[in-house]
Amino acid sequence: MTREIRLNAFHMNAPGHSWPGLWAHPRDASARHDTPEYWTQLARIAERGKLDAVFLADVIGVYDVYGGIPDAAFRAGAQAPTLDPFPVVPLMAAVTEHLGFGVTATLSYERPYLLARRFSTLDHLTRGRMAWNIVTGILDSGAKGAGQAGLGAHDERYAAAEEYLEVVYALWEGSWADDALVQDREARQYIRPDRVRRISHRGAHYDLDAIHLVHPTPQRTPLLFQAGASAAGRNFAGGHAEAVFINGHTRPLVAETVRDLRRRAVARGRQADDVRVFLGASIIVAPTDAEARDRHAEYERWIDYPGSLALLSGWSGIDLSRYGLDEPIRHVTGNAMQSLIEAITTRSPERAWTVRDLAHFGQAGGRGAFLVGSPTTVADELQRWVEEADLDGFNLTRLVFPEGLEAVVDLLVPELQSRGVFKTQYAPGPLRQKLFGAPRLPDRHPAARHRAFGPDR
Amino acid sequence: MTREIRLNAFHMNAPGHSWPGLWAHPRDASARHDTPEYWTQLARIAERGKLDAVFLADVIGVYDVYGGIPDAAFRAGAQAPTLDPFPVVPLMAAVTEHLGFGVTATLSYERPYLLARRFSTLDHLTRGRMAWNIVTGILDSGAKGAGQAGLGAHDERYAAAEEYLEVVYALWEGSWADDALVQDREARQYIRPDRVRRISHRGAHYDLDAIHLVHPTPQRTPLLFQAGASAAGRNFAGGHAEAVFINGHTRPLVAETVRDLRRRAVARGRQADDVRVFLGASIIVAPTDAEARDRHAEYERWIDYPGSLALLSGWSGIDLSRYGLDEPIRHVTGNAMQSLIEAITTRSPERAWTVRDLAHFGQAGGRGAFLVGSPTTVADELQRWVEEADLDGFNLTRLVFPEGLEAVVDLLVPELQSRGVFKTQYAPGPLRQKLFGAPRLPDRHPAARHRAFGPDR
Repeated sequence: MTREIRLNAFHMNAPGHSWPGLWAHPRDASARHDTPEYWTQLARIAERGKLDAVFLADVIGVYDVYGGIPDAAFRAGAQAPTLDPFPVVPLMAAVTEHLGFGVTATLSYERPYLLARRFSTLDHLTRGRMAWNIVTGILDSGAKGAGQAGLGAHDERYAAAEEYLEVVYALWEGSWADDALVQDREARQYIRPDRVRRISHRGAHYDLDAIHLVHPTPQRTPLLFQAGASAAGRNFAGGHAEAVFINGHTRPLVAETVRDLRRRAVARGRQADDVRVFLGASIIVAPTDAEARDRHAEYERWIDYPGSLALLSGWSGIDLSRYGLDEPIRHVTGNAMQSLIEAITTRSPERAWTVRDLAHFGQAGGRGAFLVGSPTTVADELQRWVEEADLDGFNLTRLVFPEGLEAVVDLLVPELQSRGVFKTQYAPGPLRQKLFGAPRLPDRHPAARHRAFGPDR
Repeated sequence: MTREIRLNAFHMNAPGHSWPGLWAHPRDASARHDTPEYWTQLARIAERGKLDAVFLADVIGVYDVYGGIPDAAFRAGAQAPTLDPFPVVPLMAAVTEHLGFGVTATLSYERPYLLARRFSTLDHLTRGRMAWNIVTGILDSGAKGAGQAGLGAHDERYAAAEEYLEVVYALWEGSWADDALVQDREARQYIRPDRVRRISHRGAHYDLDAIHLVHPTPQRTPLLFQAGASAAGRNFAGGHAEAVFINGHTRPLVAETVRDLRRRAVARGRQADDVRVFLGASIIVAPTDAEARDRHAEYERWIDYPGSLALLSGWSGIDLSRYGLDEPIRHVTGNAMQSLIEAITTRSPERAWTVRDLAHFGQAGGRGAFLVGSPTTVADELQRWVEEADLDGFNLTRLVFPEGLEAVVDLLVPELQSRGVFKTQYAPGPLRQKLFGAPRLPDRHPAARHRAFGPDR
């Protein structure tokens, strides 16, 4: 087929994720995110649509930059409350067979020894369907909860992250041989001790002297996802990530980001297509363009503007409560917001853009593709994005759930399948095998340096 | 009815738990503990038998005191590999309605802010069925994995634990009012910010300045379980625990432990029956005494002695590999083992007890009740234990699974029910309500001091 398109459902264990306010829509189920039924419904829809994974965002902390208090985020349910994403994975795995699970987990507050154990446990229980979205934390309020004065410096966090990965790679790839777990009932031997190795690491940020607590899983290292947009983040992604989640306002900008990511992968000894790149996308699809536009107009009525600005304030560090909703967008100062403002105003320079538009446009974390239309219209656009920006797929922002995702699965996916750009059945095996053809990391990945046992020794 | 007896299934996400070696028994399923089906089967059997909870042991580290290496534990699958217990809870919850889940989690390696979030998330998803078995770690090998030189001093760990609990109590009980989460679709308000409070704590071991990330759960604080046997451990239990898991060799000894626990609870401002005490119990029940004895003899053939000694060595810190299996038990030196040796030898002073007997007898962590017989025989014994030692119930050691637990559920439970000492249906509501009649902690519990919002303000 022509270039394949992959889709993930981008979700969060919170009422409001990228579009705060939609929880109040009469047909939206997000307010029930604290029940098992919410997640089994999501998983069943996603697997029916042959999505690769449910990608679970997470944030540690509250959005209290806006006005210096979390009130706007709280009123809107904007990423608050924010429950642990891990416990919903087994629920979703129990009702699916192929769907993958990307879990955001910060390495700043968890010991590598224990986080490695959790991912390995889940990789066993899901039979190789785990991905880890590696983050270092974004909110000072979270760092204070974790007993720190605040987040460390950005680049320093990535340096610590590089070391953290070396430790977990060693545990996942180097502590147990594939044939260590023999379960030999005749000989009454469960594990061959000579096929298990102690990992010793002493570094600037982490010390560890231990045997990994879990035998090798289908993937060993979970599929490595990453979403950092800074130079340090991209360099980290180039070195480690197998899938990268990006945002961007225009095809040329996104194309440049993708080129840069693939270049950085090659610079670190990997191949350009060792990285699958997913663009954030808000998709509203309906049988006709007119119906889709109507639905979009309806959804927009539920947007919570202060809640949206509270998220933007948290991400940028700029307190947007200092501006009125109808104040001109040009009044907003602060470097972190200028590229977004530019992206908005260049669309239609003559229009009197306001802070309200900023909230609007800033949704979905600065917004990737925003597509409204019939299956034909949206499919055309997705193909343009993929071809012009060298993308592998899209992370679909949660809009009104479940109807938004159901429309994608029931209307858009068949259209893409009829064009030969979307799978009609899942590939077999673990998540990495579905994406790259093999369940384990390739030898050129840095994790492979930690392998201590040959495949057939 | 006369005194009620409660049962929990004592399990672990590992092939060998208290009786290493049984995994190799042809009818044992423990080697499949890394699959979802193992756990859903366990949960269904436990709920069919109206057990209160599955109590999940955990250990961070490997048993490497025996000979200075983990080889004996590894060969036997003795608490190795040891997977994370948390991910199996949602699997079990999905196929049950009333069964509770006691998860062992060490507070030594996890930040209170994040552990509190995980338990709250699970208390929502299970609709109030969570219990936390509070531990501080027992293996130096685990501390080294967590980046420490070793375990801290025992009493110092309990001092840190006291502080840790103050922090999580404040998050669970004091950060959100019950009416904070309004989900008012008309007013488009999800959370009332004035009903949410920031928790600030600066202490010797923990700093935190944060709002709990999760809205109030059915129980708020999970049911608090504890299993420490030392004086510091019992004092901690008296102050905090709602359920205590103990072991002991004789009814008089256990009775004294129970009296001491209840005394310590009263000394800390609680009531004697604020603590439910569960004794570890290995039960082999069959239609007749003779059949039960046959089954016992059969199970014993699968015991892995070096694996059992590796566990004993890890718990006691005494390297038992220095002794031959047939060496007289009196050769074993080291204070930590003397009470166990005494318990063994006083049973039959004329017998030539050996190190093999120590392994044997030391199973189930020093062994609580060990009962083999028909339903009538075992029920008689359980009632004697409960009455003479003032117990509330038993934590049932995993033997050959599932047949061992199925025999309890299908043979013993009906016998206890016919005697009027075992529930014929679950009480409604969360786990704490089932055990104590109310879903939340009583006002006299120390956690209640952190309540900042009245019930109807």
